[in-house]
Amino acid sequence: MTMEFASRCRGTSRIPADPSRPYVIEKGEGDRAHLFGDLITVYAGGEQTENAFNFFTVEGPKGDIIPAHLHADTYEVFYVTQGAVRLFVEDTEGRQTERLLTPGDFGFVPKDCPHAYRIERHHSQIVGVAAGPGGTFERFFETLGTPAEALGLPATPYVPEPERFASVSQQFDVRFLAGHEWGTSA
Amino acid sequence: MTMEFASRCRGTSRIPADPSRPYVIEKGEGDRAHLFGDLITVYAGGEQTENAFNFFTVEGPKGDIIPAHLHADTYEVFYVTQGAVRLFVEDTEGRQTERLLTPGDFGFVPKDCPHAYRIERHHSQIVGVAAGPGGTFERFFETLGTPAEALGLPATPYVPEPERFASVSQQFDVRFLAGHEWGTSA
Repeated sequence: MTMEFASRCRGTSRIPADPSRPYVIEKGEGDRAHLFGDLITVYAGGEQTENAFNFFTVEGPKGDIIPAHLHADTYEVFYVTQGAVRLFVEDTEGRQTERLLTPGDFGFVPKDCPHAYRIERHHSQIVGVAAGPGGTFERFFETLGTPAEALGLPATPYVPEPERFASVSQQFDVRFLAGHEWGTSA
Repeated sequence: MTMEFASRCRGTSRIPADPSRPYVIEKGEGDRAHLFGDLITVYAGGEQTENAFNFFTVEGPKGDIIPAHLHADTYEVFYVTQGAVRLFVEDTEGRQTERLLTPGDFGFVPKDCPHAYRIERHHSQIVGVAAGPGGTFERFFETLGTPAEALGLPATPYVPEPERFASVSQQFDVRFLAGHEWGTSA
């Protein structure tokens, strides 16, 4: 059984518009977006949970570290299900750490903590949950990046226009930290 | 590097008591509990997220369907990472569905929807997120069940005293539905 629904964010989506409706989405068939070389797939968001939480996956190839950023009002989970991902985090007192996460490992980034990650094996996958008292930001990825209908990683990376970073970030509680350096091994 | 912290719920835990502190927990080393034949491992909870959300895994052997229940104020995610799990859900109008979830498949159960699941392959694992406007309930499992220090599934199932179901359930927004029947294939 395959059902599709019209939604606020997508012409068609496997996520029901009615938040009181139970649903199942098969692997890969959530709302997809491309941002740089990564595929982001949203399975649930603030509209489904009275803004309590969201649930999405990030899949990508082995690549560079992403730009350092923080969320002033959002807690974020990095749970690796495939491959290997190096998580860089700085606490609110400026102490930096990095850890390699392999499948089943869990990283937690509190609000206001600068962080970044680097995918270190091809075909890696991160499960993400990102929410806080201010709500959820799962539509950040398709807004800074681009919605995708195709399955699989972007054929070519989607690179946003530079001026988009500031405007989109403000809208979704993401603050990029230009010039931030990791004094660990990054 | 292995760090342990004193916590409100545990003598020692890999979850920092200070909610502003970033952390990593390796696979299996979250706060563990046994309930019937299952191992529940909590990696983050309401104390870490200002009650926005939690994150836990449920691992179990192939077995029977669990008792039907609902959460009046909690949305719940069933994301399967290993094995196969059959999810049974009834919507608020009484329509029942069941779906077999295999790795990467995602099930969403809104508040007030009766649901249950049956693990259909040994070594299955579900990632769970369960939260809503009323908060999170990750300590339900160790309160109805029992905290565990050992790694791995319970050597023998932990069966709670019957009178515990009502008292613990009320405390954690879980309502068991005695006599509930699934008219699908269960």
